[in-house]
Amino acid sequence: MYSFMNDYSEGAHPKVLELLMKSNLEQNAGYGEDTHTAKAKEYIKKLLGNEKADIHFIPGGTQTNLIVISSFLRPYEGVIAADTGHINVHETGAIEATGHKVITVPNREGKVIPEDILEAVRFHSDEHMVKPAMVYISDSTELGTVYTKEEIYKIRQLCNREGLLLFLDGARLGSALASRENDLELSDIAELTDVFYIGGTKNGALLGEALVIVKEELKANFRYLIKQRGALMAKGFVAGIQFEALFSDSLFYELGEHANEMAGRIGDTLKSLGMEFLAPPVSNQLFPILPDEFLEELQEEFLFSVQKSMGNGESAVRFVTSWATTPASVEALCEFLKKRFKK
Amino acid sequence: MYSFMNDYSEGAHPKVLELLMKSNLEQNAGYGEDTHTAKAKEYIKKLLGNEKADIHFIPGGTQTNLIVISSFLRPYEGVIAADTGHINVHETGAIEATGHKVITVPNREGKVIPEDILEAVRFHSDEHMVKPAMVYISDSTELGTVYTKEEIYKIRQLCNREGLLLFLDGARLGSALASRENDLELSDIAELTDVFYIGGTKNGALLGEALVIVKEELKANFRYLIKQRGALMAKGFVAGIQFEALFSDSLFYELGEHANEMAGRIGDTLKSLGMEFLAPPVSNQLFPILPDEFLEELQEEFLFSVQKSMGNGESAVRFVTSWATTPASVEALCEFLKKRFKK
Amino acid sequence: MYSFMNDYSEGAHPKVLELLMKSNLEQNAGYGEDTHTAKAKEYIKKLLGNEKADIHFIPGGTQTNLIVISSFLRPYEGVIAADTGHINVHETGAIEATGHKVITVPNREGKVIPEDILEAVRFHSDEHMVKPAMVYISDSTELGTVYTKEEIYKIRQLCNREGLLLFLDGARLGSALASRENDLELSDIAELTDVFYIGGTKNGALLGEALVIVKEELKANFRYLIKQRGALMAKGFVAGIQFEALFSDSLFYELGEHANEMAGRIGDTLKSLGMEFLAPPVSNQLFPILPDEFLEELQEEFLFSVQKSMGNGESAVRFVTSWATTPASVEALCEFLKKRFKK
Amino acid sequence: MYSFMNDYSEGAHPKVLELLMKSNLEQNAGYGEDTHTAKAKEYIKKLLGNEKADIHFIPGGTQTNLIVISSFLRPYEGVIAADTGHINVHETGAIEATGHKVITVPNREGKVIPEDILEAVRFHSDEHMVKPAMVYISDSTELGTVYTKEEIYKIRQLCNREGLLLFLDGARLGSALASRENDLELSDIAELTDVFYIGGTKNGALLGEALVIVKEELKANFRYLIKQRGALMAKGFVAGIQFEALFSDSLFYELGEHANEMAGRIGDTLKSLGMEFLAPPVSNQLFPILPDEFLEELQEEFLFSVQKSMGNGESAVRFVTSWATTPASVEALCEFLKKRFKK
Repeated sequence: MYSFMNDYSEGAHPKVLELLMKSNLEQNAGYGEDTHTAKAKEYIKKLLGNEKADIHFIPGGTQTNLIVISSFLRPYEGVIAADTGHINVHETGAIEATGHKVITVPNREGKVIPEDILEAVRFHSDEHMVKPAMVYISDSTELGTVYTKEEIYKIRQLCNREGLLLFLDGARLGSALASRENDLELSDIAELTDVFYIGGTKNGALLGEALVIVKEELKANFRYLIKQRGALMAKGFVAGIQFEALFSDSLFYELGEHANEMAGRIGDTLKSLGMEFLAPPVSNQLFPILPDEFLEELQEEFLFSVQKSMGNGESAVRFVTSWATTPASVEALCEFLKKRFKK
Repeated sequence: MYSFMNDYSEGAHPKVLELLMKSNLEQNAGYGEDTHTAKAKEYIKKLLGNEKADIHFIPGGTQTNLIVISSFLRPYEGVIAADTGHINVHETGAIEATGHKVITVPNREGKVIPEDILEAVRFHSDEHMVKPAMVYISDSTELGTVYTKEEIYKIRQLCNREGLLLFLDGARLGSALASRENDLELSDIAELTDVFYIGGTKNGALLGEALVIVKEELKANFRYLIKQRGALMAKGFVAGIQFEALFSDSLFYELGEHANEMAGRIGDTLKSLGMEFLAPPVSNQLFPILPDEFLEELQEEFLFSVQKSMGNGESAVRFVTSWATTPASVEALCEFLKKRFKK
Repeated sequence: MYSFMNDYSEGAHPKVLELLMKSNLEQNAGYGEDTHTAKAKEYIKKLLGNEKADIHFIPGGTQTNLIVISSFLRPYEGVIAADTGHINVHETGAIEATGHKVITVPNREGKVIPEDILEAVRFHSDEHMVKPAMVYISDSTELGTVYTKEEIYKIRQLCNREGLLLFLDGARLGSALASRENDLELSDIAELTDVFYIGGTKNGALLGEALVIVKEELKANFRYLIKQRGALMAKGFVAGIQFEALFSDSLFYELGEHANEMAGRIGDTLKSLGMEFLAPPVSNQLFPILPDEFLEELQEEFLFSVQKSMGNGESAVRFVTSWATTPASVEALCEFLKKRFKK
Repeated sequence: MYSFMNDYSEGAHPKVLELLMKSNLEQNAGYGEDTHTAKAKEYIKKLLGNEKADIHFIPGGTQTNLIVISSFLRPYEGVIAADTGHINVHETGAIEATGHKVITVPNREGKVIPEDILEAVRFHSDEHMVKPAMVYISDSTELGTVYTKEEIYKIRQLCNREGLLLFLDGARLGSALASRENDLELSDIAELTDVFYIGGTKNGALLGEALVIVKEELKANFRYLIKQRGALMAKGFVAGIQFEALFSDSLFYELGEHANEMAGRIGDTLKSLGMEFLAPPVSNQLFPILPDEFLEELQEEFLFSVQKSMGNGESAVRFVTSWATTPASVEALCEFLKKRFKK
C-alpha cells in the first residue's frame, strides 16, 4: 500500500547516502567542526549571496524552532504565529517550555498578514502583557501555501517599523521554492528575514535543518544554545555531509521540483474531477475535500491523513508527496480517483 | 595524522550503514512507529530480560539526559552527580536550563559512592533547599572507570532507603560492559536502575541512544516529553534501523570489545614504560600522565586532548579508542611511545 | 478626584491594620510558621468545613497562579482558560515562563463552559500537542460575572471524566461570594475544586492570597515550590495576621458586601438611564457602555479605565468599587451621570 | 523566651508603620506608580548620587535575586557565587528554576575573591560549558562578614576585564554599612556594581527590597520581568511608603547601627570569655563556637540556630540581632554567658 501520509517516510536520497558511505571511515572533527560541514556552509552561503551569514546544522525542526526562539527573545517576549503554525499546535508546547508565549493571529490560508500582526502588537500595550518581539512564518505553510516576495516584503517592513524579528521556518522550503507560485530565491529570504532555516529532513536527508542567521546581532555565542538544548551532534559531520550532497549541485532544488511535480499531477486530476481544496494546491501538500463515504474505500488502497471534517458529509484530507514519491504510485492514485469520480 | 581525540570521529559501523542502505527506500511510519524500531526494541528487551521495559531512541546524550531528568523530577527537585559528571560540566547547563539543580558530590575516580550521596541528602534538610530526588551515574565514567555490580547495588540500596531514583548514563556503556573490570550484564543494569541508556553514537551508530525506562511509574506519556524537547525524530526509523543492526546479533558487544582491546594495548605499553594514570585504565578512555616536554612532539604525530596539568611538569592526557580504531594506528602510537621512553 | 480605577488603591481595612500594629513588636517565627498564621488557617478551615485542607498565604495573585500551575502540571501539560483569563492576558506570560501553555477557549461573558473545555480536550489528541491537564476559572471573572454552583458543578463533572484538575482563581472571591447572583459558599468551592484561592489584596489586606489545596495528592512538598518561586515571605506573619483579622469574624464577607453595594448603586443608576453593559453587572466591577463623546468629560471628574471601543461611537468602560469606596463618591458619580443623561 | 534566631521576627519599625497608617486611606495608583514610591526613589537616588539609577521595589530577596539573574543573563550564561551564597544554598534552586547554573567558588569567610572568580572563568572555556557572565556577592555575607571598598573594587576590575556583571545582594546591607569594618557608602556601591539591592525586610520594613539598576543597558523593560515573576505588587505603594519612611531621614542607617550595637555587645562578651568565631563578628550576625554540652542549657533560655558541628565537641551557633533587639535581652544573654563561662 503506497503512503501519501507525509514526506518523511523514506531515508535519504541515494546521492546523499552515497556521500555518507564514501566518507564513513574518514576521521572527522566532532561537533560540526569538520571539513564537510565547512563545505556545505560554503555552498549555501554562495546561494544566499551572503558570505557573512552564520549557518548551523541542527537535527530537527522542533529543535531548531525552540533554539531560535529561546535564543533571540528576552524572557518576557513572545512570538507571533498563525493559529495553525507548527510552533503553536504541533510541538507539544516546545516554545512555552522554553518560557515564551506564542501569540496567535488568524491564519489566512496558512499565512500571516501584516494587518493581523499589527493588531496583535497594539493589543500588547504594557508590562502586564508579554511583549511581541518576533514574527514566525513558515514557507510552505501548514496548509501547503507559499508566500510571494511581496507578501514577505510587507511583513518585513512592518517588522522594521515595530521592532520585531522575522523568522522563517523552512522545514518544507525545498518544495516552496519549487512552487509555481513562488518568486523567492534563497538570497531573497536571506535579505528579508533575520533568521530562517532550510529543511533537509523533508527534502532528501536522513535528518538535519540548515539554520541561517542573517542578522549580525543574533550571531554571538549561538553554539552555546545549540549545545544546551542537546542539538550539537557529536557526529555533526553526519549532517554536514548530507547538506554537502544536497547543495554541491542542484540536488536540493531538483528534489523539491520532483515532489511538486508529483503533487501537481494529483492536484490536476482532483481539479479535473471538480474537487475543492482547503487551500490552493501549490506545493507538495494537497488538501482536497472529499466525500466522507469515499474515505474508507480510499484508505484500503492508500495511506493519507484526514485533516478535518467539513461538517457537510465531506472531509479535507491531506496527500503529501516527496522526492521519493514514484510516478507509478501517483498514477495509481490518479487512476483510482478518476475511476471513482469520472462521470 | 591519526586521532585518539574521541570516539565519535567516524560514521557508522559498516554493518549499520548497510542496513540503512538496504532499507533506504522502504516507506516507514514516522516518529519511531515503524517496524525496524519495533524490532530493535525487541532485541534489546530480550537482552534486558524485561519485556515490560519502555524503550525510546533519542538522537544524542545531552538530550537524553535533559529529557530524563526534567521528566522525572518535580520542579523543586535536584539530581545528585559527581563533580566530574557530564551533566555538571559538559552540557552547557542543559539540566539547569530545564529548571533543576545539579547537586555535586566529589568524584572517586569518576565514580559516585553511597556515603557521599547520603551526606548530600542529609545536608538538604528542608524547603529552603532543593530536594535531592535522583542519583545520576555514568558507566563508564568521565575518567574511563567502570562500576562493579556490588558498587551499583549499594547505591541502589541507598536510593531505596532515601527515596531517590537511579539513572545511569550509558553513553559509553558498550565499552564499560566489555571492560575486564566489569561484572554487569544489561539485565543487571535493568534491575538495579530506574532508567538508563545504551549509547549508540559512541559505539557504532551515526547517532542515537537507546533509553530504557524500567520503573513502571515513570513510563506514562514519556513521548510527550521527547517531542517537547525536540527529540522525536520525524525519521525515527533512522535510529531504529541502526539499533536493529547493533543488537540483531552481538555487534554492539563486539564493538566495545574492539575499542577496549585497542585501548588495552596502549595502556599496557604505557604501564610497561612506567607511566602513571589519572584513573585506572580499564575501558576505551585512558588518562596517562606524561611529561609536558613530550606533549608537543606527540601532538605532531597524533591527535589527543590534554586533560589537565598536574602542576609538576607533567600533564594528564586523554587517549580514546573506538570500534573504528585500527590496530595499525595503535601500533604506531605504541612504537612512538616506546621509542621515546624505553631506556 | 475620586478613583473607580481598581480595587487596590487603598491600604488595608482599619481592623486589619490594627491587628498588624498590635502584634508588631511580638517575636514571631519566620516563613509562616507563626501562631497568627496558624490561627488564620484554622478560621478558614472552619469555613471550608475541611480540616484537612492545606492553606498557604502567598503575597500576590500572579505568583499564586504561577506556583499552582507549575507545581501541579507535568512539563508537557497545559492549562485551559478563557481567552479573557487573567493568566492568558495580564500576567506577562508568567505561566509560559514556567514552561506551560495556556490553552484558550472562548469566554462566555468571562466564564468557561464545559462544552468548550471538552472541545479543547478532544482537539489535543496525541503527543505532538500539549496535554490539557487543568481548567482555570476565576470567580468573579475578568468581566465581573460570577459562577453559579450548578455551572461549577458541571465543569467539575467534566474534569472528573477527562482527568483534569480544577483551579479557581479567587482574587475577587470576596465580591463574588457577596453577589446577588452567587449561590456558592466557601465550603462548596472546597468541594468542587482541587485548589483555589481567596484573595486578600483586593478585599481588605495590604497584600496576600490564601491558597487552599483540597486534593490530597497535590499537598506534598508544596512549600518547596513557594520558596523556589520567591513567595515564601520571611515575615510570613504579616500575611497571617491580616487573614486572621479578615476571618476571625465576618469582616471578609462584609467587605465584599460593601464593595457590591457601592457597585450596585452605580449599576442601578446606569440601568435607570438606559445604559447597556458588556456583561451583567453583578459584582464590584461594572462595564457600562457609554458614548465616546462623554468620556473626556467624565474623566475630568473621576478616574476609571476604558475597556474597549465598541466601534459605534461608544466604549465599554470599567468602574471598580472596593471595601474602601465611600458612599459619597458613589453618590457623586451617580449624580454626575444622572445630570448628564436624565432626559 | 527571647529569640536571636533571625532578623525578621518582628513587624516594621514604628515610624514605618506610622506612615503606613497615615496614608492608609489615600487613593494611590497601583503597581508602584504612586507618589510615595516616587518619593522613596528620590530619597535613595540622592544617597546614591545617581539621578539616573533605576529603582524598583520588590517584595522579597529570593524574588529579587531570581528576577535580576534571569533578566540579565542569556539562557546559556551562569552566575558565579560563593559556595555559601544564598542563591546557591538557601533558595530551593530558584536560580536554576529560571534556567541558569550557579557556578560556585570557595567562600573566604563568606566572601568571594578575584583569584577564584578568574579560575572559574578560565575553567569554562567553550560552548560545552555554561558561560560565566555575572558575579554575585552579598554584603554582609552569609557568615556576617563585610566587604571593604578595596575588595569590591578589585572584583569590579576583574569583572571589567572579563566582561562580567557584578550584582550585590544587600538583604543585610543596613547592617553591613553600619559595620565598623565598612568603608563603603551607598554611592560607592552604585559606582562599583551594575545592580544591587538595599534590603528592607531585615532592616525595619514589613517586606520589600529596593533594587537599584545602575548599568544603562540593563534598564529597559525591567518591569516586564518583575510582573512575569509575580513580583509587581498591585499595592506597590505598600513598599514605597515603607522605603519613604526609611529614607526620608537617617532611619535606615540608625536601624543598622542599633542591630550592630546589640550584636557588638554580645560579641565583646564572647570574646572576653575567650570564645572563637567561625568568621570575624562585625555585623548583626555572630557565629561563635560553643561547647556542645552548653547548647541545651542555652536553648532553654534563648532561641538561636546551630550552624554546624565543628566535630570536636563544639558547634558554631548563630546569634542574630536586629533593629528590634532590646538592650535588656542582650544583657540577659551576656549575663547568662558570663555566669557560665567566667572563671
